[in-house]
Amino acid sequence: MGGEERRLKGEECVEEARKLREEEFSLEERARGVVLGIISRVRKEGDRALIELTKALDGVDISRGFFLDRDYLEKAFNRVSNRFREAIVNFRDRVYRFHKKQVERSWFDTVDDVIYGMMVLPMDRVGVYVPGGKASYPSTAIMAAVPARIAGVKEVYGFTPPIPTDEVLAAFYVADVDGVYTIGGAQAIAAACFGTETVKRVDKIVGPGNIYVNLAKKELFGLVGIDTLAGPSEVLIISDGSTDPQIIARDLLAQLEHDEMAKAILLTTSQEEAELVPQIVGKAVDLSERKGILSRSYGNLRIYLVETVKDAVLFSNTYGPEHLEIFVEDPFLVMSSIRCAGAVFLGSLTTTAFGDYGIGPNHILPTGGAARFSSPLGVYDFYRRISFVRIGEDAFMRIKEDVKLLAEEEGLLEHKRSVEERE
Amino acid sequence: MGGEERRLKGEECVEEARKLREEEFSLEERARGVVLGIISRVRKEGDRALIELTKALDGVDISRGFFLDRDYLEKAFNRVSNRFREAIVNFRDRVYRFHKKQVERSWFDTVDDVIYGMMVLPMDRVGVYVPGGKASYPSTAIMAAVPARIAGVKEVYGFTPPIPTDEVLAAFYVADVDGVYTIGGAQAIAAACFGTETVKRVDKIVGPGNIYVNLAKKELFGLVGIDTLAGPSEVLIISDGSTDPQIIARDLLAQLEHDEMAKAILLTTSQEEAELVPQIVGKAVDLSERKGILSRSYGNLRIYLVETVKDAVLFSNTYGPEHLEIFVEDPFLVMSSIRCAGAVFLGSLTTTAFGDYGIGPNHILPTGGAARFSSPLGVYDFYRRISFVRIGEDAFMRIKEDVKLLAEEEGLLEHKRSVEERE
Repeated sequence: MGGEERRLKGEECVEEARKLREEEFSLEERARGVVLGIISRVRKEGDRALIELTKALDGVDISRGFFLDRDYLEKAFNRVSNRFREAIVNFRDRVYRFHKKQVERSWFDTVDDVIYGMMVLPMDRVGVYVPGGKASYPSTAIMAAVPARIAGVKEVYGFTPPIPTDEVLAAFYVADVDGVYTIGGAQAIAAACFGTETVKRVDKIVGPGNIYVNLAKKELFGLVGIDTLAGPSEVLIISDGSTDPQIIARDLLAQLEHDEMAKAILLTTSQEEAELVPQIVGKAVDLSERKGILSRSYGNLRIYLVETVKDAVLFSNTYGPEHLEIFVEDPFLVMSSIRCAGAVFLGSLTTTAFGDYGIGPNHILPTGGAARFSSPLGVYDFYRRISFVRIGEDAFMRIKEDVKLLAEEEGLLEHKRSVEERE
Repeated sequence: MGGEERRLKGEECVEEARKLREEEFSLEERARGVVLGIISRVRKEGDRALIELTKALDGVDISRGFFLDRDYLEKAFNRVSNRFREAIVNFRDRVYRFHKKQVERSWFDTVDDVIYGMMVLPMDRVGVYVPGGKASYPSTAIMAAVPARIAGVKEVYGFTPPIPTDEVLAAFYVADVDGVYTIGGAQAIAAACFGTETVKRVDKIVGPGNIYVNLAKKELFGLVGIDTLAGPSEVLIISDGSTDPQIIARDLLAQLEHDEMAKAILLTTSQEEAELVPQIVGKAVDLSERKGILSRSYGNLRIYLVETVKDAVLFSNTYGPEHLEIFVEDPFLVMSSIRCAGAVFLGSLTTTAFGDYGIGPNHILPTGGAARFSSPLGVYDFYRRISFVRIGEDAFMRIKEDVKLLAEEEGLLEHKRSVEERE
């Protein structure tokens, strides 16, 4: 519960973090039948299915078309306010500058009469999913499309539910996408995977979405590239009591306003802070325009009093938070012991909101503990790596007996023969 | 059918490659119920479920234990032949040397009063799955574990069905794993994901497996890291007629002996070769010790006569083969137009068998066209990337208005307030 503080130390930090993650576990079956039906229809009926499903699920008639080209996006860009235009261009430029650092290169090497290496090539075509629904997310269009463009992907298409705002379309324009399909949900993911008369099949589709989008991604995993499944957003704050409790409360609130499932955790060494912060948050919930969501997500607030910052780090490394704010006197020193998180925000001036709105790093981040095995969306998500090898005669002679022996051991006698044929 | 040659040119190459891939599509439902049951039991009952399932599915009693420690592996290593021991140590060293080139580094940069960058850290614990069944695969143990060790993963565990051969255990030993769980199938993947009394939960599980392993991986995707789903193995050969047809036939046979579903495609500009090769393959099938498998997989052989090598490349780039052999006079020149494949073998001396048995690059490769969006297993598969950022006062002042505007546009008013609180 939001208000209560709990005391943790040492190994208890690991246990509590594990317990929180285990509570989240669910093998989602409810919506799967619906999603399988949608996938199957889109695959068989193409555009017709998209039109019917969008009518039924979004209540919008897209029978006159659901592809917006660059010209259309440019017009939307020209319709939004000067101030907004300027803000997203700045945003795009900062995100571009950060991600440019992630560019990878092909390499090769020559060793003992063998030439080998890896080609690092961009994918041909990718899709960028931007959710609609309760809010409009221009920032996500930029976060998803910019790394793809930097990787050198030739064609990048947006997917977003009908009827997108001018702001979202302007962001797609600024992010340099080749066009936008105004379809959402599982039907958008299926169309991106298989292609239809209108929708071009993509190599990979990235970006957050609701439960239907996630289930469709999981179902089509292996047939089309997908990023990590997006769960509820979350923040974990490590504090040594050196930050104004008002600031900490505001960051917890900012996290909790995302949706009813959003999670916010404070680990502090300060008894005073552990008592004050939940009170401030509680009062602010009642005053907020976002009270509808906050009054529910408030139940996901967790406050822990820890003995040392080291204990807080232990908790955090087990939990693997999407956003980690380190508000201590020497944040870089604490960062050096962080082993698992999506994005780290250092020092109390660095609020997560700056990450969300483009200080540079990506805001599409692993949630639900997926930071254990996945990373922020990046340029590396849009490469194909291809290994290559050429062996010379000397290398062939040197290694062939080993290859024959191992092939025989594994019972692959035709493999052995393919070597003998070359002797 | 195996014997018949077909002529293709230009756009027909794209169409035919697409058609072949579409035929492979299946939303696998048959075995899913079984797999969900296994996952659920392992999650709830832990070791007890593993023991009962292994008894029922593998016919082996593992109730006295199913973990083999380093000491046990070392004894197996000492039991295998000197020649085998030497071969896998050489194999390991060559694979190590290649993959060492894939090491990535953390980086940071300072731009306009903002310090940001990415930490590149190894995962804590990973699992390496090596299938059992019809054959024993010591080579796969090395291919999967070596990149994890190079990334710096602290704990690496093998998973393989009971009762593994000494050769597989020796390979696990050489690959420096911390121990081996002798469990296989969906139950192994579930145990790796959730942990049991005996099995330590891992961050990621990699390595090829059968349909049950694949379905379990797909189902648990998002809860545990997994690599690409492994489908039937495949080779595509591009030939200009400069290679001995016997060699080409032998490589097609080597591919087709993997299992009944294995696929082999020859694209050649030589009419003579297009006629000769299937005849040689057909005769060899009857003579092979692997006739049982080959007589079935022979139906998956495809021979195409193309006008130009460029046409063959067009086909290959659309198909995205797991193994691509380029047997032409100037293979590097052709490689420069390759856009989609798992691993490329250049020149007729470079048989795929050398890749399988450790010339250097990995042999765990994307199949079924997954090369469009995924890569050979590599060191990059075992990293967590974590972004970090710290902003200074000047940066805060410069960017805050943009952040507030964008937060407001997206309706996230508490995000806006988290910035205002710091002003």
